[in-house]
Amino acid sequence: MNISAQPYVILVRPQLAENMGMVARAMMNCGLENLRLVSPKEDYLSPKALSASSGADEILQKAKVYTGLSEAIADLQYLYATTARPRNQIKEVYTAESAMPGLNQHLNGGNACGILFGPERTGLENDEVSVADAIIEIPLNPKHCSLNLSQAVLLVGYEWYKTQIQAVPHRLVTNATQLANKEQLLNFLSFLESELSDFKNLQDKEKRPTLLRNIHNIFTRSQLTEQDLNTLYGIIKYLHRK
Amino acid sequence: MNISAQPYVILVRPQLAENMGMVARAMMNCGLENLRLVSPKEDYLSPKALSASSGADEILQKAKVYTGLSEAIADLQYLYATTARPRNQIKEVYTAESAMPGLNQHLNGGNACGILFGPERTGLENDEVSVADAIIEIPLNPKHCSLNLSQAVLLVGYEWYKTQIQAVPHRLVTNATQLANKEQLLNFLSFLESELSDFKNLQDKEKRPTLLRNIHNIFTRSQLTEQDLNTLYGIIKYLHRK
Repeated sequence: MNISAQPYVILVRPQLAENMGMVARAMMNCGLENLRLVSPKEDYLSPKALSASSGADEILQKAKVYTGLSEAIADLQYLYATTARPRNQIKEVYTAESAMPGLNQHLNGGNACGILFGPERTGLENDEVSVADAIIEIPLNPKHCSLNLSQAVLLVGYEWYKTQIQAVPHRLVTNATQLANKEQLLNFLSFLESELSDFKNLQDKEKRPTLLRNIHNIFTRSQLTEQDLNTLYGIIKYLHRK
Repeated sequence: MNISAQPYVILVRPQLAENMGMVARAMMNCGLENLRLVSPKEDYLSPKALSASSGADEILQKAKVYTGLSEAIADLQYLYATTARPRNQIKEVYTAESAMPGLNQHLNGGNACGILFGPERTGLENDEVSVADAIIEIPLNPKHCSLNLSQAVLLVGYEWYKTQIQAVPHRLVTNATQLANKEQLLNFLSFLESELSDFKNLQDKEKRPTLLRNIHNIFTRSQLTEQDLNTLYGIIKYLHRK
């Protein structure tokens, strides 16, 4: 991952060392490495902060501290402000997800980008929001949308991280074995049918076709592997012998 | 939101009361209300848990406690297991996002669904994973994918919540005012041009067309509202008078 093409996470007046540590942890979860702190109220390198970072202390060590927001954003070209409530400012408002194409467009175009997160209790001040190019509002239950600072960073970072990796489609984990092919499956179903030759319900000519289809469906739905088929052959043979 | 059509969040042997509280908070952020606890190690209604829930104590109060996993999932029809690392079991593996269409399909079809989260330190045991129909792996930085329990619940809950609300496309927040229409904008640009009649660079016939286009672009890009135009008229008139 190209670190220079990452957004800066900028905590404005964060209050608690523990939260700064948890933010570092959340950033590392999402492959984000660039942290800026604007006049933090507690020591971001205190034991509390380092312990809360849960192994992401490298991000805290590298963090840059600024006395004011202007200095912290001076070298950035595009800036987002995260807000929990509407601010009634004439500005684009994105969800965490919908912000990502634009953010990546700026990053890929070589623009340095930052994302502002306000203090735990109050969030960003309106004047601070007004220097941002756009707003990110995380869509959450309006009846309970207060998020821990690190969780806000996590959700935005997570949406960004998802754009950086190849989408992982759902897949079947198969190690030593693989999905049986249809010939193997149909052979098994024929075997099962022959083993059931004395089974009463199959002797009823009306019920027989439906019952066979149901049996086929049961074993087709389970997406059997070659190994599973061997297991089932064994079970059926054992039961029959009994 | 239809609560019966929500997945159950099932914490298997959660260790810390504080984490159970934070899970309740994360659930409430995402509109999830049904919490099940399998032999929790600490009291999920302790002051620590309630305080960490940050107002979501209603979810803790309603939580149901079970002594074993079998009892906790007995009435469910479809079950996901969340894991941080691959488990080498023959089972569908989804990302938090890609799991949602299937989950919602089951929920909408009237199936009761659950999502298992393992203990803080160790995660779910392989035998516990094997009773689930599918696995959810949250895509995170492989170098640092350890997540706090509540953050795992938050990310899965957040992906689910996003499917429950209308996608919020980016929009311009305009309150008392609206975006100027093109006539208003072009009138303003003509006005500006006339006010600049003595401006040297505009008198150079070669430079003039480019310069005018640049000026047009500057003010087109800022997506001015009617109110912004009034502000700019005032500024230009003031500067001219000076």
